[in-house]
Amino acid sequence: MQIGFLGLGTMGSPMAANLLKAGYQVQVWNRSQDPVAKLVALGARAADSPAHAASGSDVLISMLPDDTVTRAVLIAGGALAALKAGAIHVNMATVSVAFAHEMAEHHQAAGVAYVAAPVLGRVHLAEAGKLNILAAGNSAILDRVQPLFDCMGQKTWRFGDRPEQANVVKLAANFMLASAIETLGEASALATSHGVSGEAFIEMVTSTIFATPAYQGYGGALAQRRFEPAGFKLALGYKDVRLALEAAEATHVPMPFASILKDNHLDSLAHGEGHLDWAALGLVAARRAGQN
Amino acid sequence: MQIGFLGLGTMGSPMAANLLKAGYQVQVWNRSQDPVAKLVALGARAADSPAHAASGSDVLISMLPDDTVTRAVLIAGGALAALKAGAIHVNMATVSVAFAHEMAEHHQAAGVAYVAAPVLGRVHLAEAGKLNILAAGNSAILDRVQPLFDCMGQKTWRFGDRPEQANVVKLAANFMLASAIETLGEASALATSHGVSGEAFIEMVTSTIFATPAYQGYGGALAQRRFEPAGFKLALGYKDVRLALEAAEATHVPMPFASILKDNHLDSLAHGEGHLDWAALGLVAARRAGQN
Amino acid sequence: MQIGFLGLGTMGSPMAANLLKAGYQVQVWNRSQDPVAKLVALGARAADSPAHAASGSDVLISMLPDDTVTRAVLIAGGALAALKAGAIHVNMATVSVAFAHEMAEHHQAAGVAYVAAPVLGRVHLAEAGKLNILAAGNSAILDRVQPLFDCMGQKTWRFGDRPEQANVVKLAANFMLASAIETLGEASALATSHGVSGEAFIEMVTSTIFATPAYQGYGGALAQRRFEPAGFKLALGYKDVRLALEAAEATHVPMPFASILKDNHLDSLAHGEGHLDWAALGLVAARRAGQN
Amino acid sequence: MQIGFLGLGTMGSPMAANLLKAGYQVQVWNRSQDPVAKLVALGARAADSPAHAASGSDVLISMLPDDTVTRAVLIAGGALAALKAGAIHVNMATVSVAFAHEMAEHHQAAGVAYVAAPVLGRVHLAEAGKLNILAAGNSAILDRVQPLFDCMGQKTWRFGDRPEQANVVKLAANFMLASAIETLGEASALATSHGVSGEAFIEMVTSTIFATPAYQGYGGALAQRRFEPAGFKLALGYKDVRLALEAAEATHVPMPFASILKDNHLDSLAHGEGHLDWAALGLVAARRAGQN
Repeated sequence: MQIGFLGLGTMGSPMAANLLKAGYQVQVWNRSQDPVAKLVALGARAADSPAHAASGSDVLISMLPDDTVTRAVLIAGGALAALKAGAIHVNMATVSVAFAHEMAEHHQAAGVAYVAAPVLGRVHLAEAGKLNILAAGNSAILDRVQPLFDCMGQKTWRFGDRPEQANVVKLAANFMLASAIETLGEASALATSHGVSGEAFIEMVTSTIFATPAYQGYGGALAQRRFEPAGFKLALGYKDVRLALEAAEATHVPMPFASILKDNHLDSLAHGEGHLDWAALGLVAARRAGQN
Repeated sequence: MQIGFLGLGTMGSPMAANLLKAGYQVQVWNRSQDPVAKLVALGARAADSPAHAASGSDVLISMLPDDTVTRAVLIAGGALAALKAGAIHVNMATVSVAFAHEMAEHHQAAGVAYVAAPVLGRVHLAEAGKLNILAAGNSAILDRVQPLFDCMGQKTWRFGDRPEQANVVKLAANFMLASAIETLGEASALATSHGVSGEAFIEMVTSTIFATPAYQGYGGALAQRRFEPAGFKLALGYKDVRLALEAAEATHVPMPFASILKDNHLDSLAHGEGHLDWAALGLVAARRAGQN
Repeated sequence: MQIGFLGLGTMGSPMAANLLKAGYQVQVWNRSQDPVAKLVALGARAADSPAHAASGSDVLISMLPDDTVTRAVLIAGGALAALKAGAIHVNMATVSVAFAHEMAEHHQAAGVAYVAAPVLGRVHLAEAGKLNILAAGNSAILDRVQPLFDCMGQKTWRFGDRPEQANVVKLAANFMLASAIETLGEASALATSHGVSGEAFIEMVTSTIFATPAYQGYGGALAQRRFEPAGFKLALGYKDVRLALEAAEATHVPMPFASILKDNHLDSLAHGEGHLDWAALGLVAARRAGQN
Repeated sequence: MQIGFLGLGTMGSPMAANLLKAGYQVQVWNRSQDPVAKLVALGARAADSPAHAASGSDVLISMLPDDTVTRAVLIAGGALAALKAGAIHVNMATVSVAFAHEMAEHHQAAGVAYVAAPVLGRVHLAEAGKLNILAAGNSAILDRVQPLFDCMGQKTWRFGDRPEQANVVKLAANFMLASAIETLGEASALATSHGVSGEAFIEMVTSTIFATPAYQGYGGALAQRRFEPAGFKLALGYKDVRLALEAAEATHVPMPFASILKDNHLDSLAHGEGHLDWAALGLVAARRAGQN
């Protein structure tokens, strides 16, 4: 099975590496060349264009930053047109529901199968092949790419026949992470306002009722006001909350927490904090309470 | 050390039982007599009034439902007046910050030490002596009652010299639980609106990024619309969110998530759902989206 | 008809003066003596205690700052006890719904009629006898005091048999004023962020679709950042929004705008703006957008 | 001066008629033919395509439903391409800020002046030539079309050199109307919950502190639950609130009231109320309080 891989960022690179380790032939393309060279050292073939990476591939995987870049690379960049009939495109990026729908239509017109498989997990899980893969699309197609998922993830969860359903799930999960950060921020601001150490409070809740890496990671960063380097930038978190809201608007679902989150991200952005780690969202409550 | 214990509800009974198991002499009082008889069978002495339970005790522990009952039992019921000089009252209930302040003043006037030690954990943890105990008050006093905490809890966390600081922490923690429920509700409503199984979605997030008993418990109940019998009633959750907001008002802390939570609890109460398990708060998002 | 009048603040003084002008005998009491002297110069008799003002009166009018002061003056101050059987107490202050209920019970026990009649309008309307009077209580009693209302107000609106209903209406009206301020603040922040003059924007909307004194007054103050001297302090507006929310909680009414308002008032208070005019509430949106 | 006019809906028709009455030559185009015939009867010339209406015109006015239709008619429909060099396009519709920006660029490329002039006012004001016109763009260009504005409006307000600034102002104004409706809804729900007549409450506030046609119109409809026929559909109000939020996102302005409004419109849409008059937004508070 010949694989094309588009997008070798912090997540895409280790994912592609895991496919190589499993013995697959992979043609990789990336806008900048450094990550390409690293993958070539692991056995990949360098493609000089998206179309070249797609050409001859049975499965094309893309892991690109957002809707705009994905559209540019797949459509304008010629990757979709270069795929052979019957090929499969697996989009593993976090994209909007509307864009997933648009892509599904483009692929149907092109005679290429399209499935979505965004992932949960940061770089170290990508490197360990331990991502959680959120998949949706035609189940026979998903069966065919399942061996690839097994190289990259610890578990694949399927959510339906329409690719955008996986994107909804990913956006809903990211909304939940944002809610956890905001919750930590408000609770800490409350505790702090009564003279309780925010750090002690966060240590307690993340050791007891919320003893998970997500709460511990964001909570620890918030307690210590440690927001650089950013593991995941606040500006990207904002983008995902907006996409969750757009998905909710499409089906008429009020999401008041998500609305608060969007306003608080805007507050952060207006205060020049978009480049900080997402945990910095938790500063908004403190700032509004005059604690800074 | 002679201990008085007021309030033998679902939490108080196993807590008192653990003190008896550890060999302490405990005089117990409760409004209804059934739980008293059970504790007497374990070695407790029955007190026929709050004052009687307090009389002669070195430490008086109270675990009563709320501010009103605590005030009635301690003040009108004569328990505080019956304590000897130098005795210690440990209030382990979830009460308001304003009431904690009021109690501290009453005790100072009476020459009795007052500390607060609300707990995190449900009945099974109380039975196992595995509660997390959130304590605040004079540290020398806390040192003296620490052996009692060690019988009832797996760990005691200290948050400051003023008793109300422990109450703030407890209310902040309960606010975080309410936020988790609302977050689950909104995320599920979003997923469901796009044809994704709410149950599958919740199983995934509570097996991956939110793999904690709190998310799993509330999430499972929400996914299966299983709200009776209530582990913790929505109406009580509402009370705690209000107390968190009151504590935030006292120190001028905006808490937009808590405000949303209060409104959504009111929505639940207006729809006759106060007797259901707190997880039913997660229904509001679905109802507003027309999913019921 | 003998009238007692308690509370000669900026509103109470001109209201009492209008009763004197209409020929009524009025016994006035106030905590500080300056306003008393002014009313005596207009023909009032000075009472040296609340009880003295009440004593012998057919109708006792109170216009005191809040629940606490009203309770202190009427109950502890002896005014209620001093009223003769069959007398009428007209409470024209803005008080909480819970307190109105409490007062109604006290009066019933004392054999004194109790009606509520809070007012809409600032000082200049009080001076002109042009207030809008929001009344509730037994209709026969209201009929008897209507001539007094006619001296103080341009119109009396009746809202029900229970006094607290008038208080609900007053709180709902004040909530609407707060909403108008917040709306002006958000809309101005939006316009300003795109380089539109906030002053020009506010002038336009308050000359066209919102051409009312309320919008013009708050809008003008906001446009020109002119918040002192305060016509009505932000801290008092906060109090009324809280009372509206408490009234809504009592009957399980979610009020999301009111919740936002409360949080934004807290933001203002945390930034030391409680002494400014209520219009300063409109600054919160600009501050959060980084416009200051 | 030769005028082209695109879009003869309920607003466009009387606006074009007023230009004819003032003696201007007007070439009109509309998708459906009925309104065209009526305008021809008043002296207009019928154009059989957007391009035809634009051809030869010194000023082209468009009053089309939204971004999508405007783009289709102006770009795909050939109207912009048909305009002669130096012509002026006046877009009087309510469009998004992003689209206004896009249009400005298209026009610059085409050598045609572009100004925005959305209006405040319903049909009867359009018929009377009493609209308020919110204009932005190059001031020399606006001077040249001012005589046309004077035929259609009672006053023209200018907000800046960039056309999108007028669109921001229009969206901010519509946001304020939506806020007024929601405020009325919440206040009524509160009053009603305490047994006060919602109708009496609304009559009072819209006769006193909010005595403006907007409050009176929406308030009256809400009080009487009279939502058909729709003067302005709730679904269109939703669109404008979304556009206001998008404009706020572009400049990082948190607008918590607007966020609540969006969620409440979604609640209405999810309950099948998009076709009702915008006043029906005020039902959400009552429904959530269980009052229906």
